[in-house]
Amino acid sequence: MKKYKGLLLDLDGTMYRGNEVIQEAPFFVEECRKRGIPYVFLTNNSSKQPVQVADKLNGMGIHALPEQVYTSSMAAAAYIQRKFSEPNVFMIGEEGLESALLAGGATLTEENADVVVVGIDRELSYDKLRKAALNIQNGAAFVSTNKDRAIPTEEGMLPGNGAVTEAIALTAGISPVYVGKPEALIVEEALEVLGVSKEEALLVGDNYETDISAGIYAGVDTLMVETGATSFEDLNEVESQPTYKVKKLDEWTFS
Amino acid sequence: MKKYKGLLLDLDGTMYRGNEVIQEAPFFVEECRKRGIPYVFLTNNSSKQPVQVADKLNGMGIHALPEQVYTSSMAAAAYIQRKFSEPNVFMIGEEGLESALLAGGATLTEENADVVVVGIDRELSYDKLRKAALNIQNGAAFVSTNKDRAIPTEEGMLPGNGAVTEAIALTAGISPVYVGKPEALIVEEALEVLGVSKEEALLVGDNYETDISAGIYAGVDTLMVETGATSFEDLNEVESQPTYKVKKLDEWTFS
Repeated sequence: MKKYKGLLLDLDGTMYRGNEVIQEAPFFVEECRKRGIPYVFLTNNSSKQPVQVADKLNGMGIHALPEQVYTSSMAAAAYIQRKFSEPNVFMIGEEGLESALLAGGATLTEENADVVVVGIDRELSYDKLRKAALNIQNGAAFVSTNKDRAIPTEEGMLPGNGAVTEAIALTAGISPVYVGKPEALIVEEALEVLGVSKEEALLVGDNYETDISAGIYAGVDTLMVETGATSFEDLNEVESQPTYKVKKLDEWTFS
Repeated sequence: MKKYKGLLLDLDGTMYRGNEVIQEAPFFVEECRKRGIPYVFLTNNSSKQPVQVADKLNGMGIHALPEQVYTSSMAAAAYIQRKFSEPNVFMIGEEGLESALLAGGATLTEENADVVVVGIDRELSYDKLRKAALNIQNGAAFVSTNKDRAIPTEEGMLPGNGAVTEAIALTAGISPVYVGKPEALIVEEALEVLGVSKEEALLVGDNYETDISAGIYAGVDTLMVETGATSFEDLNEVESQPTYKVKKLDEWTFS
């Protein structure tokens, strides 16, 4: 087995389920630390700031620093920063997206935006949808943190950012640039934070549609763990397979 | 030319554009009255009550009684009333939908709904989308007033009911029953109000995708007027043509 120099670790379904740690996860991350293998947590959740994500992980016994967290909000901000200098941005989103945009030099605005960015927003309103659609029709670029249609929770599937983004796209008649998993973009950005090349990295996740596909699109080896969204049986339906698969993370042998 | 015994008249693009009357419309409707041809206004707008629609038309010099207005909200309420007896309904919508549902014997609820009905709602929130998606996942039927993706206004295209409905459908993984144009259902309901058979009726509208298609699906003859959404040139792209077409309503000869 190849010796990997850096790991990209998914969160929900891989490290925890909702507010419950997945039993094998803390030991797996601890092994990385002991062996001096750098790791970064890679999440499509755009609502939280890195420090909040790190706090949650540490509370579950998983060692995490804020600088080891890379969110789809950070990928969106990085993408915008490369394309525009000091842009005016109309944002639908929560504090995770807002702080990433401001850190990237953006100015938030309601009108005459250069860019419209859409992330999950539990304060979504018709007026926000309206402003997003109008700014896009007036020429703003259209960026969305991720295309996840629904968020799995204990009460059921809740509206995901992909579903809300689609409503705006249907209104404006324009498709967005997505930056979150399964897009290669977020993986490439996270590799820069990790400081390793794509050939040296392993992406670990439970969801074929987002995690494993992101690795495949970005040319990064993948390890699928069967503790979340995708079962081994589901893999019969897909052409490109993960590089490795394990039922639980404790089956993985670090080489 | 066939002598029609009843007319179904579209509103936006046919009778008016926004708040501006289309010049030939009042005379056209007056001719119907003089000749004793009954007519009903048929609209996908689910937000208004019939009396409000009639008031607007009368204010433009177009003679209209509330009972001559048939909205997609009324079609939704009629559909639900036929399928369910005294249903509990979770509604996203405005007063037009609310009054139609209550008149149809529905009880409005937030949880444990038998039916989720979605119409345009300028007070839309994430919480409303969430409740709609959860009720549908818990087994509620899913009905939407219409699939119009966007609403044309002076400031641009605003989010339409079809775009919002699609966000809920993507979240719940279930497609709705649409009742508004171009569905045959709303035409059939309106024909009952009009009191004529489909062979005796003519549907007049500007929009091929909604009005003319509704007539075609319902087996009703159609007259397309080129004062709104669809141009004669656009008709080169479609297979089923309107029965008649005129540039303006004053070109129509009543037989």
